[in-house]
Amino acid sequence: MKNSIGTSVTMTLFGESHGPAVGVVLDGLAPGLPVDEGWIARCLAQRRPCGAVDTARTEQDRFSILSGVYRGKTTGTPLTIMIPNEDVRSADYQELERVARPSHADYTAQMKYHGFQDPRGGGHFSGRVTAGIVAAGAICRQALAAKGICVATHILRCAGIEDAPFSDVASEAERIEARRFPLILDLEEQVGAAVLAAKQDQDSLGGVIQTGISGLPAGLGEPWFDSLEGVLARAVFAIGGIKGIEFGDGFALAGMRGSQANDPFRMQEGRVVTATNRSGGINGGIANGMPVLFNMVVKPTPSIARPQQTVDFVRGEEVSLSLTGRHDPAIIRRICPVVTALVAVVLCDQLALRYGTDYLAGSV
Amino acid sequence: MKNSIGTSVTMTLFGESHGPAVGVVLDGLAPGLPVDEGWIARCLAQRRPCGAVDTARTEQDRFSILSGVYRGKTTGTPLTIMIPNEDVRSADYQELERVARPSHADYTAQMKYHGFQDPRGGGHFSGRVTAGIVAAGAICRQALAAKGICVATHILRCAGIEDAPFSDVASEAERIEARRFPLILDLEEQVGAAVLAAKQDQDSLGGVIQTGISGLPAGLGEPWFDSLEGVLARAVFAIGGIKGIEFGDGFALAGMRGSQANDPFRMQEGRVVTATNRSGGINGGIANGMPVLFNMVVKPTPSIARPQQTVDFVRGEEVSLSLTGRHDPAIIRRICPVVTALVAVVLCDQLALRYGTDYLAGSV
Amino acid sequence: MKNSIGTSVTMTLFGESHGPAVGVVLDGLAPGLPVDEGWIARCLAQRRPCGAVDTARTEQDRFSILSGVYRGKTTGTPLTIMIPNEDVRSADYQELERVARPSHADYTAQMKYHGFQDPRGGGHFSGRVTAGIVAAGAICRQALAAKGICVATHILRCAGIEDAPFSDVASEAERIEARRFPLILDLEEQVGAAVLAAKQDQDSLGGVIQTGISGLPAGLGEPWFDSLEGVLARAVFAIGGIKGIEFGDGFALAGMRGSQANDPFRMQEGRVVTATNRSGGINGGIANGMPVLFNMVVKPTPSIARPQQTVDFVRGEEVSLSLTGRHDPAIIRRICPVVTALVAVVLCDQLALRYGTDYLAGSV
Amino acid sequence: MKNSIGTSVTMTLFGESHGPAVGVVLDGLAPGLPVDEGWIARCLAQRRPCGAVDTARTEQDRFSILSGVYRGKTTGTPLTIMIPNEDVRSADYQELERVARPSHADYTAQMKYHGFQDPRGGGHFSGRVTAGIVAAGAICRQALAAKGICVATHILRCAGIEDAPFSDVASEAERIEARRFPLILDLEEQVGAAVLAAKQDQDSLGGVIQTGISGLPAGLGEPWFDSLEGVLARAVFAIGGIKGIEFGDGFALAGMRGSQANDPFRMQEGRVVTATNRSGGINGGIANGMPVLFNMVVKPTPSIARPQQTVDFVRGEEVSLSLTGRHDPAIIRRICPVVTALVAVVLCDQLALRYGTDYLAGSV
Repeated sequence: MKNSIGTSVTMTLFGESHGPAVGVVLDGLAPGLPVDEGWIARCLAQRRPCGAVDTARTEQDRFSILSGVYRGKTTGTPLTIMIPNEDVRSADYQELERVARPSHADYTAQMKYHGFQDPRGGGHFSGRVTAGIVAAGAICRQALAAKGICVATHILRCAGIEDAPFSDVASEAERIEARRFPLILDLEEQVGAAVLAAKQDQDSLGGVIQTGISGLPAGLGEPWFDSLEGVLARAVFAIGGIKGIEFGDGFALAGMRGSQANDPFRMQEGRVVTATNRSGGINGGIANGMPVLFNMVVKPTPSIARPQQTVDFVRGEEVSLSLTGRHDPAIIRRICPVVTALVAVVLCDQLALRYGTDYLAGSV
Repeated sequence: MKNSIGTSVTMTLFGESHGPAVGVVLDGLAPGLPVDEGWIARCLAQRRPCGAVDTARTEQDRFSILSGVYRGKTTGTPLTIMIPNEDVRSADYQELERVARPSHADYTAQMKYHGFQDPRGGGHFSGRVTAGIVAAGAICRQALAAKGICVATHILRCAGIEDAPFSDVASEAERIEARRFPLILDLEEQVGAAVLAAKQDQDSLGGVIQTGISGLPAGLGEPWFDSLEGVLARAVFAIGGIKGIEFGDGFALAGMRGSQANDPFRMQEGRVVTATNRSGGINGGIANGMPVLFNMVVKPTPSIARPQQTVDFVRGEEVSLSLTGRHDPAIIRRICPVVTALVAVVLCDQLALRYGTDYLAGSV
Repeated sequence: MKNSIGTSVTMTLFGESHGPAVGVVLDGLAPGLPVDEGWIARCLAQRRPCGAVDTARTEQDRFSILSGVYRGKTTGTPLTIMIPNEDVRSADYQELERVARPSHADYTAQMKYHGFQDPRGGGHFSGRVTAGIVAAGAICRQALAAKGICVATHILRCAGIEDAPFSDVASEAERIEARRFPLILDLEEQVGAAVLAAKQDQDSLGGVIQTGISGLPAGLGEPWFDSLEGVLARAVFAIGGIKGIEFGDGFALAGMRGSQANDPFRMQEGRVVTATNRSGGINGGIANGMPVLFNMVVKPTPSIARPQQTVDFVRGEEVSLSLTGRHDPAIIRRICPVVTALVAVVLCDQLALRYGTDYLAGSV
Repeated sequence: MKNSIGTSVTMTLFGESHGPAVGVVLDGLAPGLPVDEGWIARCLAQRRPCGAVDTARTEQDRFSILSGVYRGKTTGTPLTIMIPNEDVRSADYQELERVARPSHADYTAQMKYHGFQDPRGGGHFSGRVTAGIVAAGAICRQALAAKGICVATHILRCAGIEDAPFSDVASEAERIEARRFPLILDLEEQVGAAVLAAKQDQDSLGGVIQTGISGLPAGLGEPWFDSLEGVLARAVFAIGGIKGIEFGDGFALAGMRGSQANDPFRMQEGRVVTATNRSGGINGGIANGMPVLFNMVVKPTPSIARPQQTVDFVRGEEVSLSLTGRHDPAIIRRICPVVTALVAVVLCDQLALRYGTDYLAGSV
């Protein structure tokens, strides 16, 4: 599948950072879903660099819908969104045809594509490609919302600053989207200052982000290889900076005994719920009806201005590299709407597999 | 795919804990690979309960190869291994048709299968099904070894006891397999004592395990949705107890800056290597030629003897549950060979996709 | 996928003609479907050789259900059926390790599997493997019947004898299954005599078979690569002897003009129907609600007793081959229940993809 | 998969007849393959309407490569080609939102997409979408040619006129492409006259086309569900007008006995060949090294100018329909380069699966 994900609803990504366009083909979505171009634009804006804390590259993300929408609604046939690349400065990247940025994909791309890859701006490995995910995810998020399903992602931890974990996904989602930084608590200034400090040090920051999903029907998921954890994990590891994922209490479960880690079941207004949610809403790979919660670690952006030791992999020589391109000191802000969008696409696929291809089309 | 994984080499699991048999169909493996029944039996033995620290259920794991092997070698057609179930005491589980063990799959299975699931011993959700993974993985491990690729998994942390992380996978793999508990350091007594202590408290333990892969060619993997991280994560989340995965330094990367987290490239004997391996051998979803390293958290076994609060989901009532079946106080020992086997199957698939279906057959 | 087919409902085949067993794993079927072992046995009996017109090899097809059935109903987890091989005379096949039977898979298997294939009785290429299809299809046929969907296959043409084409699938299905040869008209004696005549000439016969599907909901199918024609064609070409498929009037459409070939739409009791059905119930890859009809050509069985010119592909020499094994002079009788079963599996998959995984479970 | 095909090399189609653009994403192709825009344009020209024998709609097929090509070569990442729609007259199609053209997809689209489909010009069901296949196939055809593999398709039979079947694919391919109609013999005038005659009668023609593949390595293909026949058949049934496919002698095999139908093996210059090729180069689903040959029936274009009886499916009324749009009296000429392109894509996928993702890149 490589650049495609999904079985009933599939998403295919294309594009390079400095090519003519990036984009996405979203296939299998139910017919009749609203496609609100203003909402797509707002989702893309959440992912766009803003001011001093992000890359200086200005992407307007003017997108064109090439197919799959008729009279403002999905047709059910492949929905293609093209986002032309603008403000491209390829000269910044000439050295990267042979010098590997540490912890970036330059060297591995060379080993895989034998020198034929487009090295400009990271080529197909660029975070720029995630714009397509956000555009496709915007449509999926609206479809999920109509079914009472809400997805949101916020910065849980960055530079020692801790946000509150989700306690009520739907209401906190609104708060997160209202802020300049995706946070539940009012910590924007602190996080902004930490990012700027890293930038002034010609360095970068990582952190931990948390995604919450509310409203998912119990019984969604599969045992073994299509477990909800596995399907979600596979999806989010598509995003370059993510190096770990944990569901519910995750790695903290290692220090607990079963009597502490188990989530007791209870009845609440005739519904089965759990008293705690250490399992993150998933048992045996299948949603139990509680909010699905998972954390992901985002490594510090590998592109930093400081001189770094690396190799010229064409000549097989050690060299020093000082990056001069425009880079994000912390992608953690911009990665949150990407993860939300990606999870929304995955959930639409899971729901369509389970309940049929028309499930998301409310009016049908 | 549900109970199948892989694209070129595919593995399909079947069976329930108390049904006639569990088993596996392994399809697409190169023809001509040796199938050593003694080695398969030894791999199954590593996963088998041993003594007081594990469940009292005694599984002999006498297996039959139903297809795909001719004159001791793989034919290239579907290889089926059936492992009959023995020593089954279904009476232990009658209550579970309507009472959900906390943090187990009983309730989610009910929501997915509407009461038609086999509840005896966890049915298809039972760890018993992993015997098929181990058998299939045994064959794959030998094929990988012939290509210089080694996979191993050990307990990294359990009950506050810390094993050393991998520093040389191939040599440590031998040490791990020689011990009763999969550990690099000589900590078997301490870990055994901790497991017994939990058992005496009618409780259970979790922990963190680490997998190492050495010898993987640089360039293996894909950008985006078939990233090596994503493919491996999807696979290991099939295993019920695993609730998190992190590659390289994983969640610790959140506290670093880019200048600390980046792995500088260096030349070593004409080969590109990295000075550190905080990325766990993967950049941009693709192997960089360094050892691939990842940790997984294993939650404490949810089946504990202590009374627990839960619900009768058929009657919709809160009840107290005291489990009387035979259970593992810690599956962390037995999960290690399962993860190793599963990763071996995944790698055979990745290699066949990249280098062709005959790649693993040395003699061809 | 190789030996697997399907997306939501998947079927995986395994086994060799002279190995311990053949079998099938059927995954993703709705939970709660009845599994009637007597009915499975009757379906297997339809495929079994009977008397002088078929191979002398006697297969009892005693099967075991290894997983996926609990209290006589599907659980929704992988359903495995194993059919042990009996009455095996491998000595008959020793020569075939290096001598290619003309128009059989011996030489192509050698080129694909490099000599590691099991050559006994055709190994994995043997029609014996279709027993698994019939067993899995038996369960699917019952599930379809409960939804008012009927699948049947009969001999349309053999040795110059022409059966009537389907005019009412459901009622003709009963007639077909009641006969010793799957025919709509009372032509059993004629067909039987033609088969025996071919046998006496140490030769074999082919023919054309027709499958009819009634009750399929309009709107099932996809444009382009999952067209109903494409999905059904891919499935039936799995069966070795089938070399062509045509939908509706098929190749006869080449001689018509549009005004003759088009099926005019009409209203009938408030329902849209077509006055003719030259398109075989499919327009643009999607079912139009009329019976789906397609013909397949079955080539004459390639294994004949007459001496044939061929090669010893190990020595690279031309040789003469006189087959002494037990062979069918015409598989056309036995292939009909296999196609019906296979089509039933494919339809269950299509329906589950479209309407959800619980669709077939009437009681849910 | 729906609008995608392939496993290692995948092709995804998008677009509607009267939307902004049609196009294709081709993923997984080896890096370093030449992308010759002039050649792509020539392939598109073969599919374009020419003069009186085709639709009056003039498509210039000016295409843009949006991604996946760098310095004139494939990068190995998704290659996207967009072909804007021009000369669109949507007013011609207003009636089709509720009136079903007989034997077209209007009614089935309504049943599948519930009225949300784009009805203009057939929407996503339009033959216009095949332009993407031709563009993607052009690149694949060049890659295959570099490996000595040639694919070609010609009109075998139309309006009673019979072309010669392939006897030497590679040399006949050149002749076919040099002609205005894809024919081996010099029958262009006769076929052109027949098409014009049908047009004057406000009617349309079908026919039989034949594809030949030379140079395919023996051993390519799989038993059972990925048989070469099955994979090719599934692909070509994507094309709306194709209603049947037969390999080798196809339906004529039904009238033969085994002794006539079998292809005797022979040695020729140290190579195993067959004396005849009634099996069409495939045994047991796997290529035997002889040319792969198959015929497809193309039904007469359903859009004809004559008044036809049909229904208004929104109102549920019988109506008479007189089509006024611009239509092909025979798509058989234009369908040939589409089938050739599609088969080329399928073969690149099959070769990459078998021999690895770099196989097609000669220089690697």
